Amino acid sequence: MLDICLLGTGGMMPLPYRWLTSMMARCKGSNLLIDCGEGTQIALSQKGWSPRPIDVICFTHYHADHIGGLPGLLLTLGNAQRIEPVTLIGPKGLCRVVGALRSIAPELPFEIVYKEIEEKEEVFYIGPYKIEAFKVEHRILCYGYTISIPRKGRFNALKAKELNIPLKFWNKLQNGESIEDISGIYTPDMVMGPERRGLKVCYCTDTRPVPVIEKYAQGADLFICEGMYGEDGKEENAREHKHMTMYEAAEIAKKAQPKMLWLTHYSPSMNKPDEYLDDLRKIFPYTKTPRDGWSLELGFDDE
Amino acid sequence: MLDICLLGTGGMMPLPYRWLTSMMARCKGSNLLIDCGEGTQIALSQKGWSPRPIDVICFTHYHADHIGGLPGLLLTLGNAQRIEPVTLIGPKGLCRVVGALRSIAPELPFEIVYKEIEEKEEVFYIGPYKIEAFKVEHRILCYGYTISIPRKGRFNALKAKELNIPLKFWNKLQNGESIEDISGIYTPDMVMGPERRGLKVCYCTDTRPVPVIEKYAQGADLFICEGMYGEDGKEENAREHKHMTMYEAAEIAKKAQPKMLWLTHYSPSMNKPDEYLDDLRKIFPYTKTPRDGWSLELGFDDE
Repeated sequence: MLDICLLGTGGMMPLPYRWLTSMMARCKGSNLLIDCGEGTQIALSQKGWSPRPIDVICFTHYHADHIGGLPGLLLTLGNAQRIEPVTLIGPKGLCRVVGALRSIAPELPFEIVYKEIEEKEEVFYIGPYKIEAFKVEHRILCYGYTISIPRKGRFNALKAKELNIPLKFWNKLQNGESIEDISGIYTPDMVMGPERRGLKVCYCTDTRPVPVIEKYAQGADLFICEGMYGEDGKEENAREHKHMTMYEAAEIAKKAQPKMLWLTHYSPSMNKPDEYLDDLRKIFPYTKTPRDGWSLELGFDDE
Repeated sequence: MLDICLLGTGGMMPLPYRWLTSMMARCKGSNLLIDCGEGTQIALSQKGWSPRPIDVICFTHYHADHIGGLPGLLLTLGNAQRIEPVTLIGPKGLCRVVGALRSIAPELPFEIVYKEIEEKEEVFYIGPYKIEAFKVEHRILCYGYTISIPRKGRFNALKAKELNIPLKFWNKLQNGESIEDISGIYTPDMVMGPERRGLKVCYCTDTRPVPVIEKYAQGADLFICEGMYGEDGKEENAREHKHMTMYEAAEIAKKAQPKMLWLTHYSPSMNKPDEYLDDLRKIFPYTKTPRDGWSLELGFDDE
């Protein structure tokens, strides 16, 4: 239903054994990428996921480790004969920064649609995705995202029969269409139950642990959050550079209760993120310290 | 004396098993880089050569696969506490393109010195390096480079004795200084033989096989040249996209007679560059098809 891959887990600079933090979602043939640092296209190729269906790229902010790989990725999309438009979503400055980067990728066979985030919290609907952007707190303007796949209510066949709705209209009503016929007017709310729990992934990196993150991570199927530092005594570094420790991320998860927490954006100085797992799980038991390329298939609940 | 590393051998796009074409030279504690595509800093780190001493970066042209890694590399230099200026050399447009790319790397703790190439052929002297740039023929303005380490003539001790030059001045004369003393005026030419053969590496990629390349590759210790295509029937592709086949590169080497030819900038579609070696060596016997990270130590002749 919704495939998620954490393409890289590094912060600051790409390393030979660790790509920069970036996430790809796949749903119904449409791919969505969050962040695209130097090397992201190689990480993608290594994972074996095609860049061709990337319809949306969201940027948290415009530090090089989150956007430096964009010109190369756009050219690679072009070389893959993509001609459908690609939508870019990001903080104010999107057109300016991407315009500047395109000085080395000027010719593309597809259109770029720019969606600059204007508000502190904003929602976009693109293809199968509901994308919520929320402002967090970094050294420069920075946003977190949730990527959701909404799920319609259950179709009530009994009620449809009771209301004598012709069988030929059932499918249309399930797809949200209203129908006017000589026998009457039929609307989806007549036969559809309330919207069911869908799928939600929350992605948040390069920020202090501000309350808005908890709000958006609430009940997510997967909460991907930066945990730049794990070592003792790095709290001050985190505060100064407007980042988070792994423990701060786990504390957010404890409040927001996602099904799972994946840490990422490890500092280049952190060799073994696993070392801190025992302590982290005392705060939030469903914490993981992924390595590059970890992926997960999320499906709707059985109901 | 002069270490050379071909950090990557790929053209167009970085692949999981092949970095983009880029070369590093090391001499007397000063490093020089030619081209810096996406991932070059990782290739460098993988090789184990430090980015910290990079004093000069030369660009052949401004397609993304040759410069896309620059913002990341500059930031990594900054994170490595580099404070000495870095000189960038490249075709016209250097300030504009690098200025644009720096929108994602605005804060650096060192100065950037821009040297835009004004002429079809131009010489720069930086640190131990003599750098010659020569215009080649690509879809956009593009230059090849030679990197040379000149070698002084031999010091003639017998002659210095005959001329009664005090011993204390010998070292200064060897270092090119002239001395005025109550006993007379001494100049280097009185005791130094003619300049000896130094070291020369010629680097040339993204171009049709134009005659100027032969001129600069003449007698080089190492000639690194693009060989984008090896397969039969790709000659037309090479002509259309202003690239070279491996055979065209070997033909240049046949005329220029470098000590060795290293091919590079392989098309992503070329899996095994070695396949063409037998045929290439019929044209120029000292042809090699390097893999990423090949390096070579060049030393002065024994004389």
